[in-house]
Amino acid sequence: MSGEDIDGKAVAATIRGELKERVSSLRSPPGLAVILVGSRRDSQTYVRMKKKACEEVGIQSFGFDYPDTVTEDELLQKIAELNSDDKVHGILVQLPLPKHINEDSIIEAVHPTKDVDGLHPRNNAALCSTGTHVGAEKVDWADLSSVPFHIPCTPQGCIELLDRSGVELKGKNAVVIGRSNLVGLPVAMLLMHRDATVTIVHSKTTDAPGVVGRADVVVAAVGRAEMVKKEWIKEGAVVIDVGINSVDDASAKRGYRLVGDVDYAGCKEVASKITPVPGGVGPMTIAMLLRNTVNSCVRSGATKGE
Amino acid sequence: MSGEDIDGKAVAATIRGELKERVSSLRSPPGLAVILVGSRRDSQTYVRMKKKACEEVGIQSFGFDYPDTVTEDELLQKIAELNSDDKVHGILVQLPLPKHINEDSIIEAVHPTKDVDGLHPRNNAALCSTGTHVGAEKVDWADLSSVPFHIPCTPQGCIELLDRSGVELKGKNAVVIGRSNLVGLPVAMLLMHRDATVTIVHSKTTDAPGVVGRADVVVAAVGRAEMVKKEWIKEGAVVIDVGINSVDDASAKRGYRLVGDVDYAGCKEVASKITPVPGGVGPMTIAMLLRNTVNSCVRSGATKGE
Repeated sequence: MSGEDIDGKAVAATIRGELKERVSSLRSPPGLAVILVGSRRDSQTYVRMKKKACEEVGIQSFGFDYPDTVTEDELLQKIAELNSDDKVHGILVQLPLPKHINEDSIIEAVHPTKDVDGLHPRNNAALCSTGTHVGAEKVDWADLSSVPFHIPCTPQGCIELLDRSGVELKGKNAVVIGRSNLVGLPVAMLLMHRDATVTIVHSKTTDAPGVVGRADVVVAAVGRAEMVKKEWIKEGAVVIDVGINSVDDASAKRGYRLVGDVDYAGCKEVASKITPVPGGVGPMTIAMLLRNTVNSCVRSGATKGE
Repeated sequence: MSGEDIDGKAVAATIRGELKERVSSLRSPPGLAVILVGSRRDSQTYVRMKKKACEEVGIQSFGFDYPDTVTEDELLQKIAELNSDDKVHGILVQLPLPKHINEDSIIEAVHPTKDVDGLHPRNNAALCSTGTHVGAEKVDWADLSSVPFHIPCTPQGCIELLDRSGVELKGKNAVVIGRSNLVGLPVAMLLMHRDATVTIVHSKTTDAPGVVGRADVVVAAVGRAEMVKKEWIKEGAVVIDVGINSVDDASAKRGYRLVGDVDYAGCKEVASKITPVPGGVGPMTIAMLLRNTVNSCVRSGATKGE
């Protein structure tokens, strides 16, 4: 058996197409403010990619670049200004920030309705609740694009990939490897809201291969190159690989290549479906950022004729 | 093999003793405001028990009783007043509230530092985070009494019982049955923070007995009388029963008796330790409420000589 690839690049392109159509029906364009601090190469690349993706679907992006020496107060002032700017529906602060700035304070300063990264405590609390404690609106976890608060992009992208690949989650055993705030925990919550029976595996788990071996769906998000081996995966399981790790490779042009947290070649032999790295979860993150921004705009009342 | 009882009544009494000593070292007494709406018998009983427990350890309790007809605004005004009252370190709104009052709004109105029930989204978000996203203070999950925000009382009581019974959690398989905001989810988070490998079982889980059968620690919090059977429990597992269900019993004085979510007699034969119902988790809830209130007072700076 050889597992089918889940093509994140194609799914993300489809979603961007859907968003473009949706944006064209809006009275005024959604706006995303992107705050970039310092001159980290990777951050600059991510910000460039995000702005470009905005352009493609018709979202206005507003860039605010600051030097490494910017003060926390300056950032907080800018965020306060953006919070009350009607043209801005999403505010994204590219992380990480320089050490002299308290990331939590910055994250909490963004108004929850504009927190398109889904990092604000209020959005996290809504994600980590069942039943009534998610505000006044009824949450339909079956359609994440309808959820009335912001869900972090990468975890949301994982579920979207599963959905669009026809993977049923209800009643299935799902194992999440990793318990980070950015991926592990939120993806575990989303899987639970979809009625999967979820187990969170982490560095202190004594029998990770055994636990993973019982999973119908595996989400790997630990940041350790090719940690998950073929022998861990149950025949027919679905494997979502969130990891992006660079490993030395003398034969590669740049001297390295990117691999996931999963031994892709090996696991593909037993999995029914698997995401490649790159080209799996990666492209979904920006697609979900765009969707959060468009949703935020729609929720603000900017639909035609209103 | 017959499992040892975990005596929640005794543990709670010990904790109340510790708190009494701690309170006596404070410059001024901790204060707990208790808001009771309507004339539900059970709510009245709980409030009476909480006030009595406060008295025992030296916490001042301030009762505010309202008729069923109270408006949301009246409650919000009272809460705002209590939020800025220096003599009040904890604010407890006895739930459930009448249908015309939005419980979420009331819960969110309580200042997070005075939210001794641990229900505010900010406290929930802190509980549902790993690493840095828990404010400025470093969280030491090994000692829950030191955690710088409020953790819900019943889940905290479960962990305290395990700790004081010498149950190691790190690397153990823990299964939580139930995913409620009040118990299931927070107790799962606490077990994860203690480095257990946690699985959440719920109504859509396809093989609950199989999943529970692999657990070293089982926490049952579903509200279904004696659902967890002897056959589900692994030999030597520790069983914490959060359920309190009344079942008809003609032989009992009142015509009913209280049982947990666990078939106590059966499970006791295979478990190494087990909580009885009543007298297990029950008494811990109020003890943890008292501890949250005392901690809140200490964090407000009310220590002697300061």
